[in-house]
Amino acid sequence: MSQRAELVKVIHFLHQKGWAPATSSNYSFREAGQSNFFVSQSGLDKGDFAEKHFLQVDPSGNPVDDARKPSAETLLHCAVYQLFPEARCVLHTHTVLNTVVSQLLETQGGIVLENYEILKGFSGIKTHEISVKIPIFANTQDIAELSIELAEFVRWNDSELRAFLIAGHGMYTWGNTIADAKRHVEVVEFLLECEYLKMKLKG
Amino acid sequence: MSQRAELVKVIHFLHQKGWAPATSSNYSFREAGQSNFFVSQSGLDKGDFAEKHFLQVDPSGNPVDDARKPSAETLLHCAVYQLFPEARCVLHTHTVLNTVVSQLLETQGGIVLENYEILKGFSGIKTHEISVKIPIFANTQDIAELSIELAEFVRWNDSELRAFLIAGHGMYTWGNTIADAKRHVEVVEFLLECEYLKMKLKG
Amino acid sequence: MSQRAELVKVIHFLHQKGWAPATSSNYSFREAGQSNFFVSQSGLDKGDFAEKHFLQVDPSGNPVDDARKPSAETLLHCAVYQLFPEARCVLHTHTVLNTVVSQLLETQGGIVLENYEILKGFSGIKTHEISVKIPIFANTQDIAELSIELAEFVRWNDSELRAFLIAGHGMYTWGNTIADAKRHVEVVEFLLECEYLKMKLKG
Amino acid sequence: MSQRAELVKVIHFLHQKGWAPATSSNYSFREAGQSNFFVSQSGLDKGDFAEKHFLQVDPSGNPVDDARKPSAETLLHCAVYQLFPEARCVLHTHTVLNTVVSQLLETQGGIVLENYEILKGFSGIKTHEISVKIPIFANTQDIAELSIELAEFVRWNDSELRAFLIAGHGMYTWGNTIADAKRHVEVVEFLLECEYLKMKLKG
Repeated sequence: MSQRAELVKVIHFLHQKGWAPATSSNYSFREAGQSNFFVSQSGLDKGDFAEKHFLQVDPSGNPVDDARKPSAETLLHCAVYQLFPEARCVLHTHTVLNTVVSQLLETQGGIVLENYEILKGFSGIKTHEISVKIPIFANTQDIAELSIELAEFVRWNDSELRAFLIAGHGMYTWGNTIADAKRHVEVVEFLLECEYLKMKLKG
Repeated sequence: MSQRAELVKVIHFLHQKGWAPATSSNYSFREAGQSNFFVSQSGLDKGDFAEKHFLQVDPSGNPVDDARKPSAETLLHCAVYQLFPEARCVLHTHTVLNTVVSQLLETQGGIVLENYEILKGFSGIKTHEISVKIPIFANTQDIAELSIELAEFVRWNDSELRAFLIAGHGMYTWGNTIADAKRHVEVVEFLLECEYLKMKLKG
Repeated sequence: MSQRAELVKVIHFLHQKGWAPATSSNYSFREAGQSNFFVSQSGLDKGDFAEKHFLQVDPSGNPVDDARKPSAETLLHCAVYQLFPEARCVLHTHTVLNTVVSQLLETQGGIVLENYEILKGFSGIKTHEISVKIPIFANTQDIAELSIELAEFVRWNDSELRAFLIAGHGMYTWGNTIADAKRHVEVVEFLLECEYLKMKLKG
Repeated sequence: MSQRAELVKVIHFLHQKGWAPATSSNYSFREAGQSNFFVSQSGLDKGDFAEKHFLQVDPSGNPVDDARKPSAETLLHCAVYQLFPEARCVLHTHTVLNTVVSQLLETQGGIVLENYEILKGFSGIKTHEISVKIPIFANTQDIAELSIELAEFVRWNDSELRAFLIAGHGMYTWGNTIADAKRHVEVVEFLLECEYLKMKLKG
């Protein structure tokens, strides 16, 4: 299966889960040895997303020979590909739980995940006895500014960053293959749901 | 795809989500330049809904050359089309969350939605830094009266109304295309779920 | 479509909803003018349920020319058909919410449902301004005793009974057609979910 | 249907339920009269799982003429087959609810399930008037140690053990047929959800 086809299959999985409502969410992949990448076209119902709905952009997010509009958040994809040279796929989900948890925990700057077996679903993690922090950034319509904030965070705080949240907006994660990125989405969404269920019991 | 076929596809999506249980909910579309519109027949299981189950009604909700019974709430569709001349599709959902949230917040008259990225899913909204109020009307079997109440609200309170709730009964929204109206349903249902999850934590 | 085929379609819908887990639940239909009826065979995964899995029983629940074992709760179906001569279909669901709500409210004897538009999904109800009580019986393995308890309740308390719960066990409802019975299941499950969500907020 | 095909169908059911996210979970079956068994290959997305993804291992968990890597938790399957000679299928699920409930109740060592009709879904149980305890073991990456802990528990505490939890990791159950094991998964997941919903109300 081509990478393009593989990612379309993943998008339909994410849509079917209810993780891409109301034309939200965006996705990209980068082929081996390339600096340009392919990002989802803006504003489509993800249930109808097809291979033709990817458009090529350069590392700065400008469309290459294409009049269509890439996702408004393409610059965040650019930032991830620059910060993580081995990343080949970036996925953004927009779920009820990542919206709510990111709002509730925004003031503490992030969420710390520990003692979950499913943390091993992150590439390179071999034990549940680890602490993974998912930072939460404030939401803004200035994606260029958010990209800089992300780059600063990676540089000074966590060079092994695996995912981040934007308060009231959603989650970004990535991987060295499309399958890795998809698995990372499932890990983070699973853990946000666990954390929410435990918050409820604590009152 | 014809508008009729497009709306049937949307109805099956809404039904599959569990947002049209027990033959509840109703839907309509209006073709360009027409004052008559097509509304769903009353009392059908929406999982079995097909193109033939729309019937044409005039702007007052009377069937045009058709012995079948339109939905009991056709008058609300009439009111929306009259208040919003550009509207081409009206969708009503009947969900557990819109039922519960509308009952819980009925006394405060509505629900205010702020700081959610998904608010940009409403046509014409370009930022999350906005406040959208969804009013909640008391439930009544007198749909004519409710239509008047709605018209008064739009006239005096909010000419940009995007959706409304009826306590213990459900949600109405609309759009200038069928795709817009569907997206608006997804936005509102997503946000009601977010609001409910936050209410639970506040106790 | 034959009644048999229609009910199989309903069973698959209920199973797909997660309302018939672990081979639980049972279902029956009675043809016009007959006293015998057809009930689901015991112990099958409802995802695999097919037309051949109904067996005919007499009004006392004894199989007619059939060596297979009817559902253990066939006597409750017998009781419903005797108490409600117009009933043509009886459906039992076994859901997380009907289990939990029936346990939580067992000591108060039932649950009162009011001010919900979806109450109009019950045959014969034309307004939300009505109060419908769903009684809760204690669970027992003595189905004959439970059948008598049900008959007494209908005789002395509520000749218009529409559904009942058995604590920690599930819900029974019925209708004058298969479509009516299915709609009643959806109404009750919807309302139990609403009631649970409101209980949580009350603490 | 072959056992292999039957178990693939069960795996797709479990995956579709969301009970095998992010390549987690593992499954095995043992044919009549055999001591070797077939276990799922490590690290696959269970939505893509096919018959060829089982590999044969000996009773100690070593692959038989196969270069592929069996699931990291194959030793737990070995332990179950040794402790329960009639077991023919072992299923492990990794769900949000079994993760959260096992963490919340880890300090009390297990969860006691009573007064649920669905307990009759466990093979050999004929009444809801029974108490079934599901023990919770601490999570560890040392599966050999966990296997010993399990064997000790069965020997000294409960020779009729039907399922166990590993805190923050998931649930194991088994059966004398694939259908029994699947039904046991549904019973336990159903009951963990019930228990969680009741915990929330208790605060």
